[in-house]
Amino acid sequence: MEHYPILNQIHSPSDLKKLDNWEIGRLCYEIRQFLIEHVSKTGGHLASNLGTVELTVALHRVFDSPKDSIVWDVGHQSYTHKILTGRKERFDTLRQRDGLSGFPKPHESEHDAFVAGHASISISAAYGIACANWLSGNDHTAIAVVGDGAFTGGMIYEAINNVGRSNVRLIVILNHNDMSISRNVGAFARYLSTIRAKPGYLHMKQRVESFLDHLPVIGAPLKRALRHSKSVLKYILFHNTFFEEMGMEYFGPVDGHNIAQMEQVMERAKNLGRPSVIQVETIKGKGYSPAEESPSAYHGVSAHMMDTEETPAAGEKNGIAPLSFSDVFGEEMCRFAAKNQKLCAITAAMAVGTGLEPFSEQYHDRFFDVGIAEEHAVTFAAGLAVKGYLPVFAVYSTFFQRCYDQLLHDAALEKTHVVLAIDRAGIVGDDGDTHQGVFDVPLLTSIPGVQIYSPASFEGLREDLRRALYEDTGVAVVRYPRGKEMPGYFAFGQKEDHVWFDGDRSLTAISYGRTAAALYQAAGKIENPPELLLLNRIWPLDEEMLRVLAERKQIVIFEESVRSGSISEHLFCALNERGFKGKCTMVTLPDRFISQCSVDWALDQYGLSAEKIEEKINALRG
Amino acid sequence: MEHYPILNQIHSPSDLKKLDNWEIGRLCYEIRQFLIEHVSKTGGHLASNLGTVELTVALHRVFDSPKDSIVWDVGHQSYTHKILTGRKERFDTLRQRDGLSGFPKPHESEHDAFVAGHASISISAAYGIACANWLSGNDHTAIAVVGDGAFTGGMIYEAINNVGRSNVRLIVILNHNDMSISRNVGAFARYLSTIRAKPGYLHMKQRVESFLDHLPVIGAPLKRALRHSKSVLKYILFHNTFFEEMGMEYFGPVDGHNIAQMEQVMERAKNLGRPSVIQVETIKGKGYSPAEESPSAYHGVSAHMMDTEETPAAGEKNGIAPLSFSDVFGEEMCRFAAKNQKLCAITAAMAVGTGLEPFSEQYHDRFFDVGIAEEHAVTFAAGLAVKGYLPVFAVYSTFFQRCYDQLLHDAALEKTHVVLAIDRAGIVGDDGDTHQGVFDVPLLTSIPGVQIYSPASFEGLREDLRRALYEDTGVAVVRYPRGKEMPGYFAFGQKEDHVWFDGDRSLTAISYGRTAAALYQAAGKIENPPELLLLNRIWPLDEEMLRVLAERKQIVIFEESVRSGSISEHLFCALNERGFKGKCTMVTLPDRFISQCSVDWALDQYGLSAEKIEEKINALRG
Repeated sequence: MEHYPILNQIHSPSDLKKLDNWEIGRLCYEIRQFLIEHVSKTGGHLASNLGTVELTVALHRVFDSPKDSIVWDVGHQSYTHKILTGRKERFDTLRQRDGLSGFPKPHESEHDAFVAGHASISISAAYGIACANWLSGNDHTAIAVVGDGAFTGGMIYEAINNVGRSNVRLIVILNHNDMSISRNVGAFARYLSTIRAKPGYLHMKQRVESFLDHLPVIGAPLKRALRHSKSVLKYILFHNTFFEEMGMEYFGPVDGHNIAQMEQVMERAKNLGRPSVIQVETIKGKGYSPAEESPSAYHGVSAHMMDTEETPAAGEKNGIAPLSFSDVFGEEMCRFAAKNQKLCAITAAMAVGTGLEPFSEQYHDRFFDVGIAEEHAVTFAAGLAVKGYLPVFAVYSTFFQRCYDQLLHDAALEKTHVVLAIDRAGIVGDDGDTHQGVFDVPLLTSIPGVQIYSPASFEGLREDLRRALYEDTGVAVVRYPRGKEMPGYFAFGQKEDHVWFDGDRSLTAISYGRTAAALYQAAGKIENPPELLLLNRIWPLDEEMLRVLAERKQIVIFEESVRSGSISEHLFCALNERGFKGKCTMVTLPDRFISQCSVDWALDQYGLSAEKIEEKINALRG
Repeated sequence: MEHYPILNQIHSPSDLKKLDNWEIGRLCYEIRQFLIEHVSKTGGHLASNLGTVELTVALHRVFDSPKDSIVWDVGHQSYTHKILTGRKERFDTLRQRDGLSGFPKPHESEHDAFVAGHASISISAAYGIACANWLSGNDHTAIAVVGDGAFTGGMIYEAINNVGRSNVRLIVILNHNDMSISRNVGAFARYLSTIRAKPGYLHMKQRVESFLDHLPVIGAPLKRALRHSKSVLKYILFHNTFFEEMGMEYFGPVDGHNIAQMEQVMERAKNLGRPSVIQVETIKGKGYSPAEESPSAYHGVSAHMMDTEETPAAGEKNGIAPLSFSDVFGEEMCRFAAKNQKLCAITAAMAVGTGLEPFSEQYHDRFFDVGIAEEHAVTFAAGLAVKGYLPVFAVYSTFFQRCYDQLLHDAALEKTHVVLAIDRAGIVGDDGDTHQGVFDVPLLTSIPGVQIYSPASFEGLREDLRRALYEDTGVAVVRYPRGKEMPGYFAFGQKEDHVWFDGDRSLTAISYGRTAAALYQAAGKIENPPELLLLNRIWPLDEEMLRVLAERKQIVIFEESVRSGSISEHLFCALNERGFKGKCTMVTLPDRFISQCSVDWALDQYGLSAEKIEEKINALRG
């Protein structure tokens, strides 16, 4: 590490305060080199972190963490913060099992004031911290660093509504890095702003672009990612009268790559002793990801997508692009849309991640990116549906958690025909516990009248989507995992709710989704395999299927979901009501949060890999 | 009905268009009399409806429902709408089983464009409808009528962010009825508004106040309810530049009791053909409710509380006031706060309903009413907690559905010590399916590490709250029903997680919450009663308890929750894993939405009354 002479002297934020101007400049250079060196190896978010190097250094020079609390929103822009707070040596473990998290985690460091995996929560959390400081009578400051993408979420407003006109020590750093928007900001901000972006700002922009031009592999996609955003809220929010009328002092826009300027403004805001907003202009690229199979994946990067990007996986780039469930969903939506003028697609800032980008281009009028606003997305979909349109809301399982009430109250209650495509259902891997999609089955099955499909293959997804759109009424959900289908997996009867594979009836093995594919594979290796029951439509449970199962002697269920509220539990209880006297074994994920790790590792760890399933079946019959 | 000569001529909205000015004035008078006559009998929301009589008449004269869609937010202000759309004759059945709903219900009438029991959803739904109209190429208009209380919810902003700068036919009627705020509005609105509130506005105010002064019983509380609101968002939102900068045309403020003025503005907005906002100033009272036991319940009425008010129940007013679980919770919070400077209380616009009003007065600094913003409430609580404070968020079960993700991600993930007091858990009665508190057990038990108490008595609530505050770490929840404890119920060992009552071990009967009280009462009537197991802490399941239960021959569980994800399911599956070979019967609520009805009727209907429990036990042993 001898090529980081300044950085190597930084063991805690207090070391930053000893540096002179030249050393600070050199430090920022070293941090960027460090980020590129390490993130290119481990994967993770690079560009957002390249954009916040100076901002983070300035924050740690002006404020005194952990007494002063820094809350990141979303947390993937916190790598420099991690480097400066004693975690540099662990950076090779980023986003790996037992390694550094890609997001702030209070259990990882006292400098991580709050967990930050889901967007738009920071002002609420920082306001709680600021109120606690105020009640305690200390003069510590709570700082929320919010990206402009997070500003499309309703919680930001709920929080500002509460912050305004209070007298707590809270500073909101609005990290404004959408280049196309900053021009608009300028037009409004000039009226009331007392602080101007210095001419150095533009030089910085050119400097970063030049820097990106010289980056191997990732530079060009980073620049392409600086797309135009149409968010009206972002536009208006940067109009500083908004914050001022909400009772907060406004400073900005400030050049987010000029440390001296930022420190000056931060000192002013700190000494103010009441809520303020500092609008910081930074140049963002895109998270560091190896080129994925579809080059279109580098267009239209948006906040949620940045949370869950692919990390470089060895061997995936050789030859043919492996299609993902998301890609298949996107293709199928285009196919259906060509034939049906009523079909609409909705995403909450995840057009690329959910595979909807082709739809957004081909069927622009019927495509709605609502921002990071899952709640609105569902109710908006229900509004389309009551007028005879056929809305499909594509959302990651982990973010679906945000619109439970809307799905229940605004769609299911009146049996409004809304289709949800739940992507990243199940283990997602290196994004870790904040992003695992392991709670949607308990949530969905608690809502009356919901139909749920969980296909095991691409072909199954195509057929299930068709059924959800055209055969079902009310709320219908198709949920599928991140990534690829299991290679060589036999696409079993997708047109059925479930399919039986005859075998040794002393044991009936049951599964759905990608675990069904693993079970099918495992059974192929077993001599005299057990009877298999592979579910496609997992909810509601089929009455005839239950009747048959109730007569079996022993069943085992393999399921990639937390246990409490799983299909395993519902199924076993339903069998009990139908006189089942046999033995039932459930192999599910535990009722615990599951930390970052590879998908394969987790599935194996919890008994859901083909190998472990084979072992379990043999043990049960042994 | 001969004292309603004009009203009786109105069978559909089109009849309104034939009336002359004098008849319209007389009609509004008759509607008010009709509302008072009927709502005083059936219970329901009176004052909000008295405030929107002219607004509703104007809407139905200018627009053409159901082609044009009117979405009410929250729906309790829609009684006049129901009267004018062919449901006058059914008004005696309001909020009763098989009767008219107190909220708009598309299944009830084609004029109810969207369900509307939970707040802040209207602009999202209306925008969906407006987009559908736009895609269809028709010129129908979608209208969202939003109370100012609903404007504190984040969905409103998520929706406006999407509406702005689109070109759909959407009109937001901002029903502004908070008198203390209208003064502020005036100061801002004068800059850009082209339409002025006429002098008649103040006369109208005086006229309504005089009208209220002459109303028996409810007039005075109605006036007291016109309290000052501190919401900053409401303040800024009525600054019309906000809407204009968001891309919407703004009209207002308009006198909401001047039909001619409203019709003129509505016509302009309709002909505009793109999104607009009409700010309408109305005079609101409070929902018609018989005086409850605590007169303080008539102070500080806020949006959510209006959704779920008490209806007059015969016999409750004779003699001593029956304390509710909410009152006991409020008292206990004050008692703990006196001894603990770290204890904080949070509500989402429900200070009165949750019993926190005394706390808000005695511990003002540590009391936080965040508006209709459950999401923010939880994350804010977590922020307080990470700095060593002890936050308690009191929320109705039905509204808890809105903050699942925040509880999971912002509190449970890092084991942050946040306490939830979930009120109105279980059947709530006449508010109906939009408000039943029957989903919180599946939701809560799916979140890792949550502890849940469900006391059966006031004494149990006191003890459970103490344990949640002082013995537990992480997320702890105390959930309790609406209303009173069961009279004469023996307060069983509240300091225990659960208590056994020895009896005939051929059957073990299990329950918790108010159903445990019913079970205890039922067992008292049975000769040779079964063994009882009454749970106090319902989650996680106690290992020793499971070990004992696993050896029993037959168990029956009575539970006031939907089945899927219930404690019944979790318990039976846990027993299965521990070798239970016996018979298990579950008596729970069905996996269906439960319509409006009395609490007692529903509990009896679904087998959870003491009588039905006794029958079931006898049948199982028969």
